[in-house]
Amino acid sequence: MNADKVPDIIISRLPIYLRALQRMSEKGMKTTSSQELGEHVGISAAQIRKDISQFGEFGKQGTGYSIQFLIDKLREILKVNRMWDVVVVGVGAMGHALARYPGFLNRGFRVAMIFDVDPSKVGQKVGDFTIEDASQLVDCVRSAKIKVAMVTVPASAAQEVTDKLVQAGVKAILNYAPTSVNVPSHVHVQYIDPSTHLQRMTFYLD
Amino acid sequence: MNADKVPDIIISRLPIYLRALQRMSEKGMKTTSSQELGEHVGISAAQIRKDISQFGEFGKQGTGYSIQFLIDKLREILKVNRMWDVVVVGVGAMGHALARYPGFLNRGFRVAMIFDVDPSKVGQKVGDFTIEDASQLVDCVRSAKIKVAMVTVPASAAQEVTDKLVQAGVKAILNYAPTSVNVPSHVHVQYIDPSTHLQRMTFYLD
Repeated sequence: MNADKVPDIIISRLPIYLRALQRMSEKGMKTTSSQELGEHVGISAAQIRKDISQFGEFGKQGTGYSIQFLIDKLREILKVNRMWDVVVVGVGAMGHALARYPGFLNRGFRVAMIFDVDPSKVGQKVGDFTIEDASQLVDCVRSAKIKVAMVTVPASAAQEVTDKLVQAGVKAILNYAPTSVNVPSHVHVQYIDPSTHLQRMTFYLD
Repeated sequence: MNADKVPDIIISRLPIYLRALQRMSEKGMKTTSSQELGEHVGISAAQIRKDISQFGEFGKQGTGYSIQFLIDKLREILKVNRMWDVVVVGVGAMGHALARYPGFLNRGFRVAMIFDVDPSKVGQKVGDFTIEDASQLVDCVRSAKIKVAMVTVPASAAQEVTDKLVQAGVKAILNYAPTSVNVPSHVHVQYIDPSTHLQRMTFYLD
């Protein structure tokens, strides 16, 4: 399978399927259908079958999908059948919340290091972590071979932090700063900004 | 302009343009071009012109866009030229962070009420807010005519909370719980789940 050939819109749905399947599995379910999965995630059964068939024949006519088999396949496809260390940069309220976030468990990620630029925060503990000095960011992240980062700094600092992460070898950045950042084409960025998410919905309200 | 006729993918980009224009304005800039805006947000100039032209002729050949004029138009289109009260349900670390989040300022939203189901949290203060009892959620939200909500409860409680919000008249829900929820077709849901955002990127990593 060539990653370049699968449309990004399909990739964006796979984590949603995986999440729903993991919840089904936690509830003790063993098999499901594209119809049932579709009802859970609000996506049509036909779309789900089409998306999943991009990667092979994982279901059986009549009996549907083995949940555990499909979980294993999706984890392999999304490369979360391993554990990715994640660096958090910026330890405000959001950075605190992410450093202690239970929702990474069993999803392929663990926070490994947290950094802040504020001397009064450096050395303090957040859960199991000691806040590291952001001036050491490039060296520490490079030495630890960390490829995934979450950035929770103010908008004004986001580009500089992003540049440092790229310099350190980070390839995937989840940006919580309310601003777009520029990265080289080999680096991936996703954005989480509650205001833009909310504005996408208010458009439709009266 | 008929909201139903504009593709959702275009609507999803408008808040990104608005955010970039607001940052340009804060820096004292008065005019911009689709080229320059495109460099800020990582979207082609042609796409930006096409998206914006859905709503009218806002730029002038040769002189580009007046930043303030375009901000005003986008705020009007996205209906954030008013202030939306927002209810937060679930006051864990993420709910705390959102209750005190400075990034809603000037974006059209303000947190108005926060709720939790835990009796030991009810009555406690978070910033300027007193945590309200989730058993009062439907009545309070309906009385206050709140239409926008952020849900930061565990996955297992997300559907029940969502149902209550819908019952109370909420029309737009930003769901931080790591699970899909079902809503009637007149209610909009957006999802923020750092794990799914990260998994969309690890697909592309080695």
